[in-house]
Amino acid sequence: MRTTVSWQADGPSATLRRTPLQRRDLRPDDVAVRVDYCGVCHTDLHAVQAHDGGQPLVPGHEFTGVVTETGSEVTAFAVGDAVAVGNIVDSCGTCAMCLAGQENFCHTFPTLTYGGVDRHDGSTTQGGYSREYVVRSRFAHPLPPGLDPAAAAPLLCAGITVWEPLHALGAGPGTRVAVAGLGGLGHLAVKIAVALGADTSVISRSPDKADDARRLGAHDLVVSTDPERMAAARDRFDVVIDTIAAPHDLGPYLRLVAMDGTLSHLGHLGPITLETTDLLIGRKRLSSAGSGGRPATAAMLAFCAEHDITADIELLPSARVNEALDRLRRNDVRYRFVLDMSDLD
Amino acid sequence: MRTTVSWQADGPSATLRRTPLQRRDLRPDDVAVRVDYCGVCHTDLHAVQAHDGGQPLVPGHEFTGVVTETGSEVTAFAVGDAVAVGNIVDSCGTCAMCLAGQENFCHTFPTLTYGGVDRHDGSTTQGGYSREYVVRSRFAHPLPPGLDPAAAAPLLCAGITVWEPLHALGAGPGTRVAVAGLGGLGHLAVKIAVALGADTSVISRSPDKADDARRLGAHDLVVSTDPERMAAARDRFDVVIDTIAAPHDLGPYLRLVAMDGTLSHLGHLGPITLETTDLLIGRKRLSSAGSGGRPATAAMLAFCAEHDITADIELLPSARVNEALDRLRRNDVRYRFVLDMSDLD
Repeated sequence: MRTTVSWQADGPSATLRRTPLQRRDLRPDDVAVRVDYCGVCHTDLHAVQAHDGGQPLVPGHEFTGVVTETGSEVTAFAVGDAVAVGNIVDSCGTCAMCLAGQENFCHTFPTLTYGGVDRHDGSTTQGGYSREYVVRSRFAHPLPPGLDPAAAAPLLCAGITVWEPLHALGAGPGTRVAVAGLGGLGHLAVKIAVALGADTSVISRSPDKADDARRLGAHDLVVSTDPERMAAARDRFDVVIDTIAAPHDLGPYLRLVAMDGTLSHLGHLGPITLETTDLLIGRKRLSSAGSGGRPATAAMLAFCAEHDITADIELLPSARVNEALDRLRRNDVRYRFVLDMSDLD
Repeated sequence: MRTTVSWQADGPSATLRRTPLQRRDLRPDDVAVRVDYCGVCHTDLHAVQAHDGGQPLVPGHEFTGVVTETGSEVTAFAVGDAVAVGNIVDSCGTCAMCLAGQENFCHTFPTLTYGGVDRHDGSTTQGGYSREYVVRSRFAHPLPPGLDPAAAAPLLCAGITVWEPLHALGAGPGTRVAVAGLGGLGHLAVKIAVALGADTSVISRSPDKADDARRLGAHDLVVSTDPERMAAARDRFDVVIDTIAAPHDLGPYLRLVAMDGTLSHLGHLGPITLETTDLLIGRKRLSSAGSGGRPATAAMLAFCAEHDITADIELLPSARVNEALDRLRRNDVRYRFVLDMSDLD
């Protein structure tokens, strides 16, 4: 085993503490990655809040770094390569979804970057809030040159999570896209939709997001608390990317979807309740998405490099991780915290 | 006013009684229709069961008949024309949905054939379980020659309700369609999907539906109570037309939908609860539909005439309407009751 340092919850407190962490010795198809930057995702916050003091927990599933060692069979990477890792680190490789390059939908469930079960030794995976990660090389992605490695880290979860539905739903020239919720996912959805050529709007509860929306490239802001604006926007969008992180009534957002258009519900896991009539009237479609397959992740990174898209981040030394989580809980971030892991050396 | 005869609930009992009914005098754009055949829809059953003894209720919103009189401005119809009427009889005509020929999604809500509010005099509409109906001529559809008027009546509600989503979702050669629930809607969905050229399956709780499914033209039957068959059919269908008339867990049916495919939930109005992960894993889409616009109704009738598609019906004298409703409640019909209204003369 190899020893590194991590930010870990190992008791019933929702506070992460600097703690040594064991990583496995490299298997033939593994690479060791020095984690330089790790984004702070809502999922991390939920995991820390739900942590019951049992299994130790190291969050973090969107990070960038540098390869420091390669397994004996690895040919795709060399020591010194810049890489990025997202929220899945293995899959069965043989089911229809894996064969289609959608490892995120693996029929036997993909191995999550933390809180997952390693397919070989049965251990619980521990995440990127640490100075080293050992990962199967198939699930390390080359980080294209030109992308700032700190601001690129959130592309690996927030970015791919909005990229896949935007692509699947055909966002591009001639389509009208609205993004509800302007957080980590939402602000990247706006940037990517604009770069794809879609007529892009932001839906926000607050009119004071207008400047932010415009700065991100959006063409319009629909204020969801203004009934007149919402009524005027009825049936207007081919695609609504709903990144709102809390449970909410989907009805008002479905009413903004054009006939045969789709609302992609991304920001919140858990049960959804809706009225059939909210789908029926106008044949609206409700969908969801999360994470991405290897080919889509590579395509997204290439697209973002070409269009100079990264997250708007607030970079903090990793020692301030608990502050970052607390501020994320209060939605006090524009738009993503990224932890600089160099202070763990 | 004009007087006709109807089957009407006018007390707290869920029994329809033969009762005189007033119809309006013809407006310039109205036609009077002698109702010959009226289908018995689940909606009728729900309406009768929910009837509280207040407003009189005459159900019936899929019927065929013959024009007996035309308003002064009507040019599209002449006395003696065979016509069909579905579940909407008016709409605003000016909103974006009406202008797009989707009067069923009229922004100010279409006027329902019964239980609706007439847009001119504010009266409550009364349905087709009657010997005469007076309807705005825009919402009477020419019945193509060659379609049996009794077996064609259910096309006007059940038929168009499955036609619109099958079309919107691209059912045709090269697509895989499954129909869940083999009732009034479901059996027409199978016939239409097969005629559209889709590879069509039936999903049923019971293996004894295999012969019926084959006779309707389906290529396969998936038995929903057989976990192995359901697992083998995972991600298999581009389109699932869910016509199951009772609340049910959508999860098992969504798992049969292919990536980026759609489950169209048609059989049951009311709240839907589902797990986000049932949509997320495989980017499944959930939709709904109901009734149809005027152009789609005309296209559906032409298609059914061309392909010799009508409902499989059990034709009863209208005096047996209460028996029909009771048997429908027990799902004892293959696949649609149609009432012969000639006994009201």
